[in-house]
Amino acid sequence: MKKLITFLTLTTLLLSGCNEATVKTESVENSEISDPLPSWNEGATKTAIIEFVNSVSKEGGTQYVSPEERIATFDNDGTLWCEQPVAQLEFAAYQVKKMAVDHPEWKDTQPFKSVLEGDNEYLVNDLLNNHGKELMKLITVTHAGMTLTEFSADVTAFLNASSHPKYGKKYTETVYQPMLELLQYLRKNEFKTYICSGGGNSFMRVFADDVYGIVPENVIGTFAMNTFEQVDGEWQIVKGTKNIFMNDKATKPATIEQRIGRIPIFVGGNVRSGGDIGQLTYSQTNTLPNFQLLVNHDDDVREFAYSEKDNASLNAAQEGGWHVVSMKNDWKKIFPFDN
Amino acid sequence: MKKLITFLTLTTLLLSGCNEATVKTESVENSEISDPLPSWNEGATKTAIIEFVNSVSKEGGTQYVSPEERIATFDNDGTLWCEQPVAQLEFAAYQVKKMAVDHPEWKDTQPFKSVLEGDNEYLVNDLLNNHGKELMKLITVTHAGMTLTEFSADVTAFLNASSHPKYGKKYTETVYQPMLELLQYLRKNEFKTYICSGGGNSFMRVFADDVYGIVPENVIGTFAMNTFEQVDGEWQIVKGTKNIFMNDKATKPATIEQRIGRIPIFVGGNVRSGGDIGQLTYSQTNTLPNFQLLVNHDDDVREFAYSEKDNASLNAAQEGGWHVVSMKNDWKKIFPFDN
Repeated sequence: MKKLITFLTLTTLLLSGCNEATVKTESVENSEISDPLPSWNEGATKTAIIEFVNSVSKEGGTQYVSPEERIATFDNDGTLWCEQPVAQLEFAAYQVKKMAVDHPEWKDTQPFKSVLEGDNEYLVNDLLNNHGKELMKLITVTHAGMTLTEFSADVTAFLNASSHPKYGKKYTETVYQPMLELLQYLRKNEFKTYICSGGGNSFMRVFADDVYGIVPENVIGTFAMNTFEQVDGEWQIVKGTKNIFMNDKATKPATIEQRIGRIPIFVGGNVRSGGDIGQLTYSQTNTLPNFQLLVNHDDDVREFAYSEKDNASLNAAQEGGWHVVSMKNDWKKIFPFDN
Repeated sequence: MKKLITFLTLTTLLLSGCNEATVKTESVENSEISDPLPSWNEGATKTAIIEFVNSVSKEGGTQYVSPEERIATFDNDGTLWCEQPVAQLEFAAYQVKKMAVDHPEWKDTQPFKSVLEGDNEYLVNDLLNNHGKELMKLITVTHAGMTLTEFSADVTAFLNASSHPKYGKKYTETVYQPMLELLQYLRKNEFKTYICSGGGNSFMRVFADDVYGIVPENVIGTFAMNTFEQVDGEWQIVKGTKNIFMNDKATKPATIEQRIGRIPIFVGGNVRSGGDIGQLTYSQTNTLPNFQLLVNHDDDVREFAYSEKDNASLNAAQEGGWHVVSMKNDWKKIFPFDN
């Protein structure tokens, strides 16, 4: 289509001579063809994104930022893909069920019993009243003690075998089309795009490059101290549980600092648990021009509608002048498979 | 100079016609002009480096490695710059002396007393018999509790005010010229160059970009859990002491995995404490072609001569087929300031 229009434009130019009217038509056509964010509705948010990217990329401009400082970080769950349900917790449950064959005692032992019986109440209570200590037992069993190679194969097997309960699509398909376009648009303008999420480093690396074009070294997640040791005579990275760095809320800036050593100029997060207020705030401490995007889940038809009891993220957005994305109004389509 | 020779070569070609002799002369001249490692003596090590880089960079070749997998990691102390003395420990002593003004009690309190009195024995004993617990107190006081901005300014002040006891040059000048050339050569061939050192993330980032061309996100060092908090009303990264990841020996592969998520294909380390055996071994677990370089300090005239009691690194090099650099024989010059 693009080629055809370019050809027609050229033909018009040659036949008509290069008068002002022709040039104007060509320019409008080109801007339509090259819309970098086609799944975003026209509006304040889309305009602000494009203006920001243009201003920091324009050499000689007052807002210019050199490419090496164009760091963009994005939360994953609820920002780049669905977080209802949280895929990594589904993975943990999937693994517990698989491993239960070798652990007959789990039928009568919590927290495994609750997973095997599909009793969500037990873990919800644990999270609310017990700091998620029981959940951590599930995570430990399913995320540590094996080689990294084995773990990655487990994640791949889960992603291939499972599907999202609402859409019947793989979790790697329930990603937000507008955000895929935004990631690509930023990279095209020499931004380095990173994930900064509470999800596991090793979990997200299995799909981040294929799905988002985010390379392993740019995946910043929760991690623990792994070890390098000989397993069956071969040197391997073995997943451990010591010194867990839970990458959430106020620890996100600390992990970004550890990993990148630069403050991002663009951060995308979402409303759910206040989990991204930290990294969004961090980007505002940058002396360079910076941009904050907060995804609000307000579309109960096409996705889910949920909010925070204390409204912390939206309040912080108002105070900080962050750009709030209404999924309902700002996004033409939600998923790549939407019409 | 390069331009002049190119011009002369072209002139010769035009005047003489393009016969075989002329072409040969041009090719020899070009290879001399474009020697990527001019401070390396001709020999097995230099040849092996160049052959490896050529083979992994040659598209369509059997050893070809795509640029995104061309990861090179280098130890810092003793591999890229002098480790006699260890600059970061000199920094700690420098800070203790500066801070002592506000801590009159340090005159009579260990381990501060030993630093103020220049008594090295105390800390050597601590390292040998007490797991370096006293040293850790010095590190804690000088490396934590302040904002990252303050810490970085302290490091800069130290680097500007101090000089190497043997050479009378700044620590940022006592870097190895052959390794600077190697880093540049690798980057020119689309390798991503990283530091992977026991030195602190935040310490090394102060000079790594200026001195080595290694950007902050590629500095992998020892780190602790920092915090993001308000200091005098401003959001800041504050350096902490919780969950210290000491990046040495077998933890180097684990930290490389955490930071990069890929196994390096090129690793440079040095003989002293067996500190790099881990990362050198790790690179050999890569299914892609890989290369190991081990710097041996055998030049007591131009630098220092020292070895390991158990000879662990050299033994591992022999077993693994690693390339051992003799500083005495392989390096034409050691420092940029050498003639």
